[in-house]
Amino acid sequence: MGRENRTRHNREIERKFLVEKEWLPPNLKQFRSLVIEQGYLATESAGRQVRLRKRGSATSLTFKVGRGSHREEREIKLSPKQFAALWPGTAGRRLRKVRYEILWDNVIIEIDKYRGRHKDLVVAEVEFPDTASCRRFQPPWWFGREVTREKRYSNVRLALS
Amino acid sequence: MGRENRTRHNREIERKFLVEKEWLPPNLKQFRSLVIEQGYLATESAGRQVRLRKRGSATSLTFKVGRGSHREEREIKLSPKQFAALWPGTAGRRLRKVRYEILWDNVIIEIDKYRGRHKDLVVAEVEFPDTASCRRFQPPWWFGREVTREKRYSNVRLALS
Repeated sequence: MGRENRTRHNREIERKFLVEKEWLPPNLKQFRSLVIEQGYLATESAGRQVRLRKRGSATSLTFKVGRGSHREEREIKLSPKQFAALWPGTAGRRLRKVRYEILWDNVIIEIDKYRGRHKDLVVAEVEFPDTASCRRFQPPWWFGREVTREKRYSNVRLALS
Repeated sequence: MGRENRTRHNREIERKFLVEKEWLPPNLKQFRSLVIEQGYLATESAGRQVRLRKRGSATSLTFKVGRGSHREEREIKLSPKQFAALWPGTAGRRLRKVRYEILWDNVIIEIDKYRGRHKDLVVAEVEFPDTASCRRFQPPWWFGREVTREKRYSNVRLALS
């Protein structure tokens, strides 16, 4: 695909948990973090969506379709100009969050602290290389309720709500 | 916006007519023509859609939202690699047509001959600079029924049907 573009056809095996703010690691700010801003140009049922994302200064467009094990994801990098031309189309369908990445027990935990109207929400996401390690995963004590299958905590729902 | 991107916020004032194949101008092949292939990554009601298009060798992504006089359109050029990465996401939601451009009475008539499963369909589209010239327009004798407001002849419907 070359450096410019990335296509992933793999299943995303991940689990998602709520986190209470007061239980967040006190040294959270020492970890790698970046601001993520994303918006949706169009979404359909069956998880079909076109998302614009600014991750730090990197801008991209991602197409997703399907759910669960039939998820397909295609992503291209956008130039700042391409991004700027499309971004206004996501007005009213956006979200902002700060993402912290923590290495824990050989997996990367992504802590997303939402901003704006969802600013009380903190979500931890863990992605696994296979289903075995997914099942084996022992959440740290400060994780709250698991919301892996709860659609209302999907980014697309949060952006549209 | 620079050469790379184009954003149009204008109303598209256009009329659309069916054309019987046997009534097409016999010298049609002398006019400028190109093959257009397009597919839809995602579509919503209210005309919200993300379209990929290959027009000759030029590749682009277009976001549209709204209907009628509230139509908004944002288009970016895509590199061949960007296009190739996203195009598979339009499988089953595509159409192909050959477009001929004819100058008639100071307007450009675009004749679209569809291919594939809609290969019996020929549509003529005329775009106008203002509503006055739109109303004044006298269709040539070989135009068939006007279908300007018939959704089933929209490209997105044809691609999804």
